[in-house]
Amino acid sequence: MREIAELSKICASLAKSDLSVEMLDVMISEFSRHGLSGDFARKIFSLVLEERGRYGGEGTPESGLKLREFASRALELQRMGREVYRLELGEPDFTAPPSAVEAACKAIREGYSKYGPANGIKELRAAIASKLSERFGLDLKPDNIAVTAGGTFAVYGSIEAVTGLGDEVIVIEPAWPLYAHQVRWLGRRPKIIKTRFEDNWDPVNMIQEKVSRLTKLIILNYPNNPTGRVLDERSIRAIIEIAEDYGAWILSDEVYMDFCYRDGFESILKLGTERTIMVNSFSKTWGMTGFRVGYVVSDPETAARVARAQNTAITCIPEFVQRAALAALNDEESARRNVELIGMRLRILYEELSRSRLIEVRPPEGAMYIFPRINVEGFDSWRFAWKLLEEKGVAIAPGACFGQSYNNHLRISAVLDEKPLREACRRIREAVEEYC
Amino acid sequence: MREIAELSKICASLAKSDLSVEMLDVMISEFSRHGLSGDFARKIFSLVLEERGRYGGEGTPESGLKLREFASRALELQRMGREVYRLELGEPDFTAPPSAVEAACKAIREGYSKYGPANGIKELRAAIASKLSERFGLDLKPDNIAVTAGGTFAVYGSIEAVTGLGDEVIVIEPAWPLYAHQVRWLGRRPKIIKTRFEDNWDPVNMIQEKVSRLTKLIILNYPNNPTGRVLDERSIRAIIEIAEDYGAWILSDEVYMDFCYRDGFESILKLGTERTIMVNSFSKTWGMTGFRVGYVVSDPETAARVARAQNTAITCIPEFVQRAALAALNDEESARRNVELIGMRLRILYEELSRSRLIEVRPPEGAMYIFPRINVEGFDSWRFAWKLLEEKGVAIAPGACFGQSYNNHLRISAVLDEKPLREACRRIREAVEEYC
Repeated sequence: MREIAELSKICASLAKSDLSVEMLDVMISEFSRHGLSGDFARKIFSLVLEERGRYGGEGTPESGLKLREFASRALELQRMGREVYRLELGEPDFTAPPSAVEAACKAIREGYSKYGPANGIKELRAAIASKLSERFGLDLKPDNIAVTAGGTFAVYGSIEAVTGLGDEVIVIEPAWPLYAHQVRWLGRRPKIIKTRFEDNWDPVNMIQEKVSRLTKLIILNYPNNPTGRVLDERSIRAIIEIAEDYGAWILSDEVYMDFCYRDGFESILKLGTERTIMVNSFSKTWGMTGFRVGYVVSDPETAARVARAQNTAITCIPEFVQRAALAALNDEESARRNVELIGMRLRILYEELSRSRLIEVRPPEGAMYIFPRINVEGFDSWRFAWKLLEEKGVAIAPGACFGQSYNNHLRISAVLDEKPLREACRRIREAVEEYC
Repeated sequence: MREIAELSKICASLAKSDLSVEMLDVMISEFSRHGLSGDFARKIFSLVLEERGRYGGEGTPESGLKLREFASRALELQRMGREVYRLELGEPDFTAPPSAVEAACKAIREGYSKYGPANGIKELRAAIASKLSERFGLDLKPDNIAVTAGGTFAVYGSIEAVTGLGDEVIVIEPAWPLYAHQVRWLGRRPKIIKTRFEDNWDPVNMIQEKVSRLTKLIILNYPNNPTGRVLDERSIRAIIEIAEDYGAWILSDEVYMDFCYRDGFESILKLGTERTIMVNSFSKTWGMTGFRVGYVVSDPETAARVARAQNTAITCIPEFVQRAALAALNDEESARRNVELIGMRLRILYEELSRSRLIEVRPPEGAMYIFPRINVEGFDSWRFAWKLLEEKGVAIAPGACFGQSYNNHLRISAVLDEKPLREACRRIREAVEEYC
């Protein structure tokens, strides 16, 4: 019991000290001298980090999760008969193409509704592998693919696959709130990078500054939600180099890959060598959000690990959903039309919002969003969003959902047709003027 | 750095010592004297337990997971044109009722394929709450329910909801292999109870012996997979009492609730007070395994936690799947027919297997399985299963899948019609005789 008293004293002292990577190295070597594993040392180190309050101290997942409540209120107003322009969610207004709908129904009727493989049916994995290979000049095989419950599980399962308890994961803000939330949920530690509007959201130098030997994974998302930024090949190559120097993995969430409205973007698949995972989804390109089907592309072993994570959590996803995805994949015409539609609307959003002297906006490069800065002293994005919804009947996502530092931004989704979109923008401009 | 040397010495010494609950108590109080949290103390304690190799030391999840490979081989033989009697999986041979198939297709066509609430659509939660309330004389509300990606996520999310890293979870073997696997996967520690054929699989005394203040959850599964045992009300009440004494939760996986062929079974919902979670699924009763839809019933806060876990991992499940489940729920006729069918086949299995002097079998009480003991010296259930498959064209699940101690058992699923079922049993008897 004397040992325990001593242990608690040391832990308390460590929790107050400046924990460095060098200290972890010493710990690993000391622990191994006593026959204890490096993994054990890393976990203890990570618990001490957690205890001192660093863990979970960065980022604002709650604000991001509050967006659902906000969207529920918008829906409620709509159902009460009020006209509401809904631009707050990352959900296209178009639905699944008829080809996918019919494929799903046919599959259900034919009884494709039994347990299936955790990594997805082979037909779909083969089709994805061959489409991507053709597009990027690669030689992917079905085993490079794991079909997942949406892009959400693709990210979740990837974090589980390539990092361990207490490992550090770099998340670049502004960001989809679920990245940092999943990282924390799984007992890993998010290291937040706060890119800036005035730097055109460039993350490269900041990654270089924050990366360390504790970093096991860097999450990229280009074309970006919420900024719409598309990173050029040179920048992505620079990030790959940093990752390689530190032995970190790169997860490139490319669910907006098709929504790219400038030249120079390359998928990580074309640039990455080892230790990369590409995440994709059928949700955006084909408007199939509620089908819950996405996938990861990586080396066969990593894809199998993601599948194992999926087997553990949900066994598998429905086969009829996968048959719908297969039909969508072959429906390039629908994809092309959807991508054009979003591009046209992004141009409208840019044009309309540029008309206000209080709204600062960059030409959209990709994804389905525009993320303007509101140049109003003391602007509060949540307060504005609620006011805008209740008084003007327009729902947008407050910038604060995507990181603490973006409270003077708004994310507006390109998910309405031209006429209502222009009207919604007019009301946003009006509300900004009145807010001052 | 001297502190780290000291820390590693203490950790190494603790990892070799006999870690008791009393020691944890001392640790919590010492840690709190130094301003550190009890949670931190518990996690450190648990890491030390893990390091000394207790963690993950019990149970045989791998054997359970190998069953999928085995089933793939059976399927392969079938596709090569061989006649294979497939009795190895927990999957009914009947498919979803036409009412559910049509509801799914209608919903997909009508565009119910958008993001939805993480806890499931209200219509389904309300219908489940009202059905169960009617059946068990309760007053459940929609908020007591969270609809999940099958029974699998219902269990996974519940473990996340009511236990923390390093907590102890009691798993009663023989058991569905995913319980212990999920517990380990989530960084909790399974405490395995090995019930015995000769005790009629009674777990009560063994739970009493193994429970401790580290126990945060007890997982029950009656009617049981694989034994088919149904626990009587008195035994379940006794387990509830133990759980209450130790402040542990009970998760009662009742996915076979409808497949109950003896009197005296009560759902935990009727008996449990606080800290209970009931898990259920549409997979078995309505043959909807591949739809991936199940649910938990608990207090509103716990149900919300399960939904939060689901939101984090997969966002939500498809709405059209939930509409199929809603239709199934109202299709009592299909449920009744399926339950009768399985009951009739269980009687056939019992009758046929009893004819061999080497096979010891108990009258089936519930679920979809029979779990006979093979009275052959040195019997190896995996070796037998492979031989039976390759030589006789019959696939069954080796007892070893459900725990190390059950290598002389077989699990046979009641998922074929009378004639092939009798023929499969004849071949099993024959193979057992030849195996000697």
